[in-house]
Amino acid sequence: MKMCKVLGNIVATIKTKSHHGLKLMVVQSVDERGEPYSDPFIAVDCAQAGVGDIVLVVEEGGSAREVMKRPEGAVDAVIVGIIDDLNK
Amino acid sequence: MKMCKVLGNIVATIKTKSHHGLKLMVVQSVDERGEPYSDPFIAVDCAQAGVGDIVLVVEEGGSAREVMKRPEGAVDAVIVGIIDDLNK
Amino acid sequence: MKMCKVLGNIVATIKTKSHHGLKLMVVQSVDERGEPYSDPFIAVDCAQAGVGDIVLVVEEGGSAREVMKRPEGAVDAVIVGIIDDLNK
Amino acid sequence: MKMCKVLGNIVATIKTKSHHGLKLMVVQSVDERGEPYSDPFIAVDCAQAGVGDIVLVVEEGGSAREVMKRPEGAVDAVIVGIIDDLNK
Amino acid sequence: MKMCKVLGNIVATIKTKSHHGLKLMVVQSVDERGEPYSDPFIAVDCAQAGVGDIVLVVEEGGSAREVMKRPEGAVDAVIVGIIDDLNK
Repeated sequence: MKMCKVLGNIVATIKTKSHHGLKLMVVQSVDERGEPYSDPFIAVDCAQAGVGDIVLVVEEGGSAREVMKRPEGAVDAVIVGIIDDLNK
Repeated sequence: MKMCKVLGNIVATIKTKSHHGLKLMVVQSVDERGEPYSDPFIAVDCAQAGVGDIVLVVEEGGSAREVMKRPEGAVDAVIVGIIDDLNK
Repeated sequence: MKMCKVLGNIVATIKTKSHHGLKLMVVQSVDERGEPYSDPFIAVDCAQAGVGDIVLVVEEGGSAREVMKRPEGAVDAVIVGIIDDLNK
Repeated sequence: MKMCKVLGNIVATIKTKSHHGLKLMVVQSVDERGEPYSDPFIAVDCAQAGVGDIVLVVEEGGSAREVMKRPEGAVDAVIVGIIDDLNK
Repeated sequence: MKMCKVLGNIVATIKTKSHHGLKLMVVQSVDERGEPYSDPFIAVDCAQAGVGDIVLVVEEGGSAREVMKRPEGAVDAVIVGIIDDLNK
């Protein structure tokens, strides 16, 4: 799993049936100081996240499908929670 | 999932049966400003994408097979939609 | 699998049901000399690890679910042991 | 999937039963201009590829096993075709 | 799959039951000239490999579990052979 910051959401058309009705967010990984690293990617939001939130993202297909209760879904990254604090 | 730009399509021969009839596109990831990053890879087109389009790509095998309705298919990346807009 | 150092633990809310009750740690990969490399990520702790420990992390979803005895769980990284020594 | 150039083939011994009789090639990813990038890896050849060929490689385990008709096989990368041309 | 050099082996405690009795090696990827690249990681040894050997490593969970004949095992990287030669 990764800590990510929500950068925005995307609007897409001509999507396959498997992607109808999903809220798609652009997220970027952040390190333990909240600094961004790596490149942005797209995750389905299951945690009512907003732009600027630091979130917990699951990036494995089988897990993502389980979170969404769509075993047949074509999703490989899901926002499962909002991170409040990091204790070192 | 990733936001990618379509760079072109490839022509291949001597393909295994699992890859007959697929439209194979060369895509490259782009960031939230549409700038390319990372290296190009190959995705099956399920969204009637054209060269230059910004597309949504699923990169996990189980999900890709589900999108294509080919549980036995040997595909690990699929274009599932065309991205119209990014709201920040 | 990877050798990682435990950096801290996170507190998150609005988690999906699949993540209730899990102890989530921030870990960073280390090389054979214990030097950190790569970026930090989040793993579920199944080995009573503490901050500063060098741990063994499984990073594949199917394996992670098996370790946790949650076949339906949405977890893609698990701390399975604490590394005591490296023989070269 | 990736476009790769075939660099050579390897000879290995003491292999597990799952790897008996496989033709193992060293391949390296190339970009849309045929320029190599990333580091070389090993793929099973299912397309009668030769050294110097530009090939199509599937890199996901479930897909690789399907191509090879070995559901129980321990293979995570397979050459499935030879790329003749790239249209931009 | 990857060509890797064996750097050493690790000793770990408080491991989950799924990791009891496994021989865990620190390996690092090498290119076609035997030069190391990328960062070291941990693989289970199924090929009686020794420190300094160049080995063939499977890195996908489903494949790794099959090699080990532990469908329920939590392993994502396995040494399946020792590489003797590379023909270019």
